[in-house]
Amino acid sequence: MKGNVDYSLYLCTDRGLMTSPTIEDSVEQALKGGATVIQLREKDCSSREFYELALRVKAITQRYNAPLIINDRVDIALAVDADGVHVGQSDLPCAAVRAIMGPDKIVGVSASSLEEAVQAQKDGADYLGVGAMYATSTKDDAEIVSMDELKAIRRTVDLPIVVIGGINARTIPNFKHMGIEGIAVVSAIVAQADVEGAARALLKLWKD
Amino acid sequence: MKGNVDYSLYLCTDRGLMTSPTIEDSVEQALKGGATVIQLREKDCSSREFYELALRVKAITQRYNAPLIINDRVDIALAVDADGVHVGQSDLPCAAVRAIMGPDKIVGVSASSLEEAVQAQKDGADYLGVGAMYATSTKDDAEIVSMDELKAIRRTVDLPIVVIGGINARTIPNFKHMGIEGIAVVSAIVAQADVEGAARALLKLWKD
Repeated sequence: MKGNVDYSLYLCTDRGLMTSPTIEDSVEQALKGGATVIQLREKDCSSREFYELALRVKAITQRYNAPLIINDRVDIALAVDADGVHVGQSDLPCAAVRAIMGPDKIVGVSASSLEEAVQAQKDGADYLGVGAMYATSTKDDAEIVSMDELKAIRRTVDLPIVVIGGINARTIPNFKHMGIEGIAVVSAIVAQADVEGAARALLKLWKD
Repeated sequence: MKGNVDYSLYLCTDRGLMTSPTIEDSVEQALKGGATVIQLREKDCSSREFYELALRVKAITQRYNAPLIINDRVDIALAVDADGVHVGQSDLPCAAVRAIMGPDKIVGVSASSLEEAVQAQKDGADYLGVGAMYATSTKDDAEIVSMDELKAIRRTVDLPIVVIGGINARTIPNFKHMGIEGIAVVSAIVAQADVEGAARALLKLWKD
């Protein structure tokens, strides 16, 4: 799985924004529409609830042959044998995560500066989530990354890059000639009335 | 470390209740007073903050040759190479924790019934935290365990048992002839003006 991940349309879940009755339903609709990676993010439930949800979501992502990445919680990722984990700058350090997860799992890191991006590559990250590219209601305290910073990261770092933060049909064209691997989306998919249709439309916009 | 743990005076930290300016100070005072096990419990900080705190606390527990147990977060325990982890019934299942932690780390489980205690033993737990023995402000939604249930658990399960929940100088005598290995304490140590003195007095009361 790790060697040939398609980062084109990277979906992050958000229980608070989704229109679907369940995370599982939201994820399955997004996968039907073409989402290529699923990141499961839960901040306000018990470890047991997160674990049981992750097991149910993994059963879905496996059917669609899409990698399941767990946000922050390396223990949940290990317990459900997820494909990987994604850590931000206030989560466990990348080097510690790599040591725990071993060489075969995907480790992604959020970077909002060239310095963080270079450090993540040094510490064994497999891909970068760069953002927030725009102010967004999903994470309203996130630092904004300029296009120049994104270009500098792209020039300097060899890892696959997905951009995140305010990515939607209106902003996707800005990233089409940046040499990056994919777009990471939250509300532009999970908060839409037609989750599957939204995923399909974003993927088409990105790939065309 | 795992083979010969002294469970006599098991301290759980609680940032909200402590009188000391820092967790590190509270832990060191308790160790000076004779605490034999330290469980670090943090629910409201980032993974990075928990990790960095755990590293600092581990440096202290090592000086006192006392095991450091991390509450709930198996990933933090692995990242700092703690001596073990403690999980409740709403954390990761014991069997999953054992699989992640390997055979050499301490895995403790909270049990409030004979059924949970037997299951924990079956799933590879190293010790049990049985409680809440009394209603307590630390965990006001905890199920209360009767003395009869505690006796049944003691008769049925071979693991070391510590009791928790409302354990203090007044209640310790109730547990002295129950065949259990130790007492687990939160506010009766960390919320006291003299943390070291409180730990010393409780240990003496328990051992005499």
